[in-house]
Amino acid sequence: MLKIAHHTFQSKLLLGTGKFPSFEVQKQAVEVSGTEILTFAVRRMNIFEESQPNFLEQLDLTKYKLLPNTAGAKTAEEAVRIAKLAKASGLCDMIKVEVIGCNKSLLPDPVETLKASEMLLAEGFIVLPYTSDDVVLAKRLEQLGVHAIMPGASPIGSGKGLINPLNLQFIIEQSSVPVIVDAGIGSPKDAAYAMELGANGVLLNTAVSGAKDPVKMALAMKLAIEAGHLGYEAGRITEKNYGEASSPTTGMVTS
Amino acid sequence: MLKIAHHTFQSKLLLGTGKFPSFEVQKQAVEVSGTEILTFAVRRMNIFEESQPNFLEQLDLTKYKLLPNTAGAKTAEEAVRIAKLAKASGLCDMIKVEVIGCNKSLLPDPVETLKASEMLLAEGFIVLPYTSDDVVLAKRLEQLGVHAIMPGASPIGSGKGLINPLNLQFIIEQSSVPVIVDAGIGSPKDAAYAMELGANGVLLNTAVSGAKDPVKMALAMKLAIEAGHLGYEAGRITEKNYGEASSPTTGMVTS
Amino acid sequence: MLKIAHHTFQSKLLLGTGKFPSFEVQKQAVEVSGTEILTFAVRRMNIFEESQPNFLEQLDLTKYKLLPNTAGAKTAEEAVRIAKLAKASGLCDMIKVEVIGCNKSLLPDPVETLKASEMLLAEGFIVLPYTSDDVVLAKRLEQLGVHAIMPGASPIGSGKGLINPLNLQFIIEQSSVPVIVDAGIGSPKDAAYAMELGANGVLLNTAVSGAKDPVKMALAMKLAIEAGHLGYEAGRITEKNYGEASSPTTGMVTS
Amino acid sequence: MLKIAHHTFQSKLLLGTGKFPSFEVQKQAVEVSGTEILTFAVRRMNIFEESQPNFLEQLDLTKYKLLPNTAGAKTAEEAVRIAKLAKASGLCDMIKVEVIGCNKSLLPDPVETLKASEMLLAEGFIVLPYTSDDVVLAKRLEQLGVHAIMPGASPIGSGKGLINPLNLQFIIEQSSVPVIVDAGIGSPKDAAYAMELGANGVLLNTAVSGAKDPVKMALAMKLAIEAGHLGYEAGRITEKNYGEASSPTTGMVTS
Repeated sequence: MLKIAHHTFQSKLLLGTGKFPSFEVQKQAVEVSGTEILTFAVRRMNIFEESQPNFLEQLDLTKYKLLPNTAGAKTAEEAVRIAKLAKASGLCDMIKVEVIGCNKSLLPDPVETLKASEMLLAEGFIVLPYTSDDVVLAKRLEQLGVHAIMPGASPIGSGKGLINPLNLQFIIEQSSVPVIVDAGIGSPKDAAYAMELGANGVLLNTAVSGAKDPVKMALAMKLAIEAGHLGYEAGRITEKNYGEASSPTTGMVTS
Repeated sequence: MLKIAHHTFQSKLLLGTGKFPSFEVQKQAVEVSGTEILTFAVRRMNIFEESQPNFLEQLDLTKYKLLPNTAGAKTAEEAVRIAKLAKASGLCDMIKVEVIGCNKSLLPDPVETLKASEMLLAEGFIVLPYTSDDVVLAKRLEQLGVHAIMPGASPIGSGKGLINPLNLQFIIEQSSVPVIVDAGIGSPKDAAYAMELGANGVLLNTAVSGAKDPVKMALAMKLAIEAGHLGYEAGRITEKNYGEASSPTTGMVTS
Repeated sequence: MLKIAHHTFQSKLLLGTGKFPSFEVQKQAVEVSGTEILTFAVRRMNIFEESQPNFLEQLDLTKYKLLPNTAGAKTAEEAVRIAKLAKASGLCDMIKVEVIGCNKSLLPDPVETLKASEMLLAEGFIVLPYTSDDVVLAKRLEQLGVHAIMPGASPIGSGKGLINPLNLQFIIEQSSVPVIVDAGIGSPKDAAYAMELGANGVLLNTAVSGAKDPVKMALAMKLAIEAGHLGYEAGRITEKNYGEASSPTTGMVTS
Repeated sequence: MLKIAHHTFQSKLLLGTGKFPSFEVQKQAVEVSGTEILTFAVRRMNIFEESQPNFLEQLDLTKYKLLPNTAGAKTAEEAVRIAKLAKASGLCDMIKVEVIGCNKSLLPDPVETLKASEMLLAEGFIVLPYTSDDVVLAKRLEQLGVHAIMPGASPIGSGKGLINPLNLQFIIEQSSVPVIVDAGIGSPKDAAYAMELGANGVLLNTAVSGAKDPVKMALAMKLAIEAGHLGYEAGRITEKNYGEASSPTTGMVTS
């Protein structure tokens, strides 16, 4: 169970809603994934433009919590403004803080992320910052009182998976709030890996929406997250350099 | 569906039976894993010693196919002798050829493996050789007529996962018989990865039997294999070095 | 040539002075390494205690610049205090800002590192902050006016080498001040790799002082850094998945 | 010192002669690299066609030993025929056995490589087989009596470096003849890594000839190989997951 502030979720998969080939495919992928949290860029939603098609309209909002993000913000102030827009819609009380500090790598700005998180906490938001895998930065965010930490596995949309599992593990071990690995997941093995390290959830978008068959990939991710979480709980074997027979050497058949 | 010679299986997980903490745990893990193929070292089974406890007796052999292996063999002749012992039990027509050529790394001997496979094919066995990830060796084995190729991901019992995914991918791409990744799997992410590369199955033992909770790990592996297979079919995104936003940049909220 | 503020150096190796088995071994390693910059923890130096042995006394300070670090500091204020102690000795005008934010991983605190760097710049120091590989944090530090950026390759003393070469490459590409890869180097290949990515220098300590033969390792590192730098300048080949013959296929010998 | 049969060499770098942009660049790269062993595909050399330009003519053959290879051979018999052609030139007594078994990956054929090696040993050649990193295959080749083992780091020309350092280490540890890592080296760090594992030499071609500046890369490789070899002899530190300060915590400066 994933618990963020007063919300509880059975699913550990947070699904982004960008770049699906069609609303229909998106809808099916969402359903198949079992997700209970949908994320989207506020700037991209026509929340206030009723004349335009809107994915949110297609959803049964009793089944999903919305996690709008502040993508597009380059400063804390912009992030706060976007967050307030989202809240004003009455659709959500959670906000993913996303303040990008580098247009090339799309990596987050630690200073503005800290500042935006602090401001939004003061405004009473449930705050989930997207952050780099900087271990002490994650601790700082937690000390501010954020409700979950969302470190990136690798650059947004890169599909490179977990480049630095050691840092993610440090973040997970030190955190008393949920850690949701966000960004960079490319395939089911990556989602499983994040969960095996003890993450509380995984946020995905491009890995599903950009797959050849997004609906099938949504199911693959659902299973991978369950597999990884069970693997974490089950306690994996230690790595060794040298082989070790799975069969005892006593009791051998003799000729 | 995994098809080996005339056998067909729904499950893509082949489970080894060594080193479980107890018969009871083993039995539960087997059931939970959904496996339809159980592997075991012939030398370790008291097939012909009725006075001793025997895991096979506990099994409903209408539900599982047995895949005995020739572990302990250092030459083709020994492997053939062990295979014949197994067949004489009347319990199985498949044999996993396992001829270890290095006591330290437990890596297989390519020459004896080729020779044993050839001899066993001539005797009418269904032959599944455990082999290194040598790409041309795998092709050679296939040319002999083996019924599946079982390349190792890393040394037996090491839990190091897929050290050389490139070689595994070459083997999978060139093979017209099933490729079952065998040995070295440490955690669910590894099993998922093998399947994402297009493997037809994964053979596991220590990763499950050596986990703190083998039954839970068996379930994790079952799900990971399904996830990886679905991920393969769904067609993953390409890796990129640079970030790419999942949200289109048009239609932004303007202040 | 490495240029930091008004200092110029032929060597690209910065050598730490901690944990050598003896002053004599340290002295030889320093000489063999060709380094021109020696780093040390101010807290560890008996700069003001003339009665005690002091490595610095053994050095010809016309040959080496000193780069004291603020190890032991947990806040910007402590770092500034330590830096001032170092400057008061009259031995140095550079300071490596090191503010650790996690006792377990020894990873740096981004907030206090930024703050300490800003304070020290205001005091006229030549400031070289040790930082994580957070890409935007590195940019922020550069914007403050620091004289070099020192991202860690992996945790101090871990010897794990470059865990995230992608982030290091982003930092190097965006920087107009020197980037010196610091912490985590384990062996010559790691030092070469950092330089191949385009780093301007490498800071080492444990990899040399903790080697079985520190003097020989010092020479190995010197050569590795030259090799990596030349490799960067020479422009390496692109990686491919598939083999490509180094011999043209025309003009073949015919039978 | 590298010792192959009765030959001894100061340099541990074996340089291939394919695909250089010009004879002049090749000549300079060869000189700068310090190599004493030049490899080339017999099929590509106009050994017997005096009317055509020939790189070998440009060389001072008192300074270099030639290591012709059997590239182009797909069977042991073809390899033997090519080797005899090379020997008939009177220019060399060593032969690199290269029997490719897969046109896509250019990976070697273990069966034909074993057979060719055996045949050439019987003919009195000094035999250096290019092989995969199959550990037991390497042992088999050694048992035949070959004079050096040449495992690939990754596919020829791929520049992917050491994909499976574990297998290379097993091969190095078990071998009583020189191990020369061959194929796949992309940059100096890779050459250093091979030597750090204890390899006796490295064979390179595309990494140098395909670099933007082949002459500079030749020097980089020379230094990297020295660095890696010294690093091996110096005894590197053990990897740890957690940080460890290079400065003792006693004797701290107190306020």
